[in-house]
Amino acid sequence: MLNICLVGCGGVGTIASIVLEKSKRAKVTAVLRSNYDLVSDKGFDVDSIDHGKLFGWKPSTIVRSLEDAAQGGPFDYVVVAMKALPDVYSVPDIIRPVVTPGVSAIVLIQNGLDIEIPLIEAFPECTIMSGVSHTGTRITGNFVYHEDREKLFIGAHYHSGLPKEKQTEATKLYVETYAAGGPTACTYAEDIIFYRWRKLFWNGAFNTLCTLTGLDVGSLQKGGGTETLLRPALLEIYEVTKAAGYTFPEDMVERTIRDTPPSSPFKPSMQVDLEKGNPLEIEPILGGLLNHAKELGVVTPILSTAYNVLKLVQWKLIQAKKSM
Amino acid sequence: MLNICLVGCGGVGTIASIVLEKSKRAKVTAVLRSNYDLVSDKGFDVDSIDHGKLFGWKPSTIVRSLEDAAQGGPFDYVVVAMKALPDVYSVPDIIRPVVTPGVSAIVLIQNGLDIEIPLIEAFPECTIMSGVSHTGTRITGNFVYHEDREKLFIGAHYHSGLPKEKQTEATKLYVETYAAGGPTACTYAEDIIFYRWRKLFWNGAFNTLCTLTGLDVGSLQKGGGTETLLRPALLEIYEVTKAAGYTFPEDMVERTIRDTPPSSPFKPSMQVDLEKGNPLEIEPILGGLLNHAKELGVVTPILSTAYNVLKLVQWKLIQAKKSM
Repeated sequence: MLNICLVGCGGVGTIASIVLEKSKRAKVTAVLRSNYDLVSDKGFDVDSIDHGKLFGWKPSTIVRSLEDAAQGGPFDYVVVAMKALPDVYSVPDIIRPVVTPGVSAIVLIQNGLDIEIPLIEAFPECTIMSGVSHTGTRITGNFVYHEDREKLFIGAHYHSGLPKEKQTEATKLYVETYAAGGPTACTYAEDIIFYRWRKLFWNGAFNTLCTLTGLDVGSLQKGGGTETLLRPALLEIYEVTKAAGYTFPEDMVERTIRDTPPSSPFKPSMQVDLEKGNPLEIEPILGGLLNHAKELGVVTPILSTAYNVLKLVQWKLIQAKKSM
Repeated sequence: MLNICLVGCGGVGTIASIVLEKSKRAKVTAVLRSNYDLVSDKGFDVDSIDHGKLFGWKPSTIVRSLEDAAQGGPFDYVVVAMKALPDVYSVPDIIRPVVTPGVSAIVLIQNGLDIEIPLIEAFPECTIMSGVSHTGTRITGNFVYHEDREKLFIGAHYHSGLPKEKQTEATKLYVETYAAGGPTACTYAEDIIFYRWRKLFWNGAFNTLCTLTGLDVGSLQKGGGTETLLRPALLEIYEVTKAAGYTFPEDMVERTIRDTPPSSPFKPSMQVDLEKGNPLEIEPILGGLLNHAKELGVVTPILSTAYNVLKLVQWKLIQAKKSM
């Protein structure tokens, strides 16, 4: 039986805990920092396209803090499903109490590029895996609505701290365990970075531009943004990926546009976060990409301007939280 | 006695009507489209740094529409103090009823570059003057608060439709009349376009970036925007002015930053308009500048991205108004 600690129990995290428990090969200790009392009392009510309706659902163990979770260690895997906000908090600092060097592998289910680097630096004796999740969930209080089927790619972000085989082995075991837990399409990815770049096409363009303009993905196009911002931003991303050695099909730009129709009223995650006054995932979605662009000498006028504007918006959000 | 029709009686327009009437050389017919009933009943209450406190103040004539105003014509001057929103309405179409070709001169007290062109096309037999106003006013209902002393530059936008001397003469007469009306620093400008470009430094950078980020002029700087956006945007403007043949002092960029301290909580006009859900002066403040940049081959990554984002924000504002 695998011993797993889950840090970040929002929509994506809660679904992960269901899958892992359903595998019958893992026991999950979930750390609920903001909603422990509510979930302890009522459990989660879940309406999931993958798992049906569950009422009062709880993982094996729920705890209030990382320190409480550490009592149940050592953990084979520490799964991080928090938002990736390196400009707001440090994931290594947060999870340190539940990581046993040499024993625990770390699984990041988060957006962005290069999110693994700080973890590798902090825990050089641990396998660091990351997952690219394509799904749609919303959480309100203890109710999780899961509307798009989960599609997950998981791979190791290889580093020299331990033998490659050990990293591959730990990754494959996690993928097998997850795949055993239900209908999720969980795929082992030898080159996870490829999938991270691929997801950046949509996120870097739609997520960024909808947040900047306050328009949903359809209105962005109906208002005339396809020619002025969307396609040019996607082309900037395409050029960065090419320079970074990831060659996507020629029509990647057009396909990304075509797959998101102008009739869709969908609001991307950063736009929703801005509307709620929550911090934005600017660093994983734009910061990493722009670091690569700079290094590789690719000009990104739209994305760089967007990044600098959103960093100021973030500054304001954080100031507002501080004064609350 | 000059016969003057004033179109647009917000803060700037109301102050202009006071100055012109105080000159004792002009009678003003003000067109009040949205607030006729209120002002007809109570007049304007004015608290002005230039003109003191005035209660129930009205110009010689107030009317409800351009058609009503036309009864009092022909006018020597038609003064336009509306916002410059060429993507929302057409100034030539609006003022046509009160313009007598060959007789009326038109005075635009508005932001922006090239705002005179559509007027020259529509009224080729009229002198077209424009004014760059540096002042600070706010209007709420019938109350006008005028906090910064008015500083006004007025010049003809010369065109080939009538002799240059006639255009100069009409302009000088207006400036003399205005100057006779009180403490306003009203200056005749032979090259008004220079002043229009000059005002664009502040407007193109601060007005644009505060609107994009939602930060006031001080916070924009305190949040780190000086290095990432403000100075680079000002440098883009500087390059465009240089290519356009207007050579400003080398330190124009630094001076524009220095003159607006990080301690200032001031919100520029477009930002206030956005907060109120009013259309934004994107075209006069950015559109004209970017047309010149394109023609002259100057790259403007920040300002072009800002323009395209704000055009989409404008599209949304206009959609929202339509559905009201």
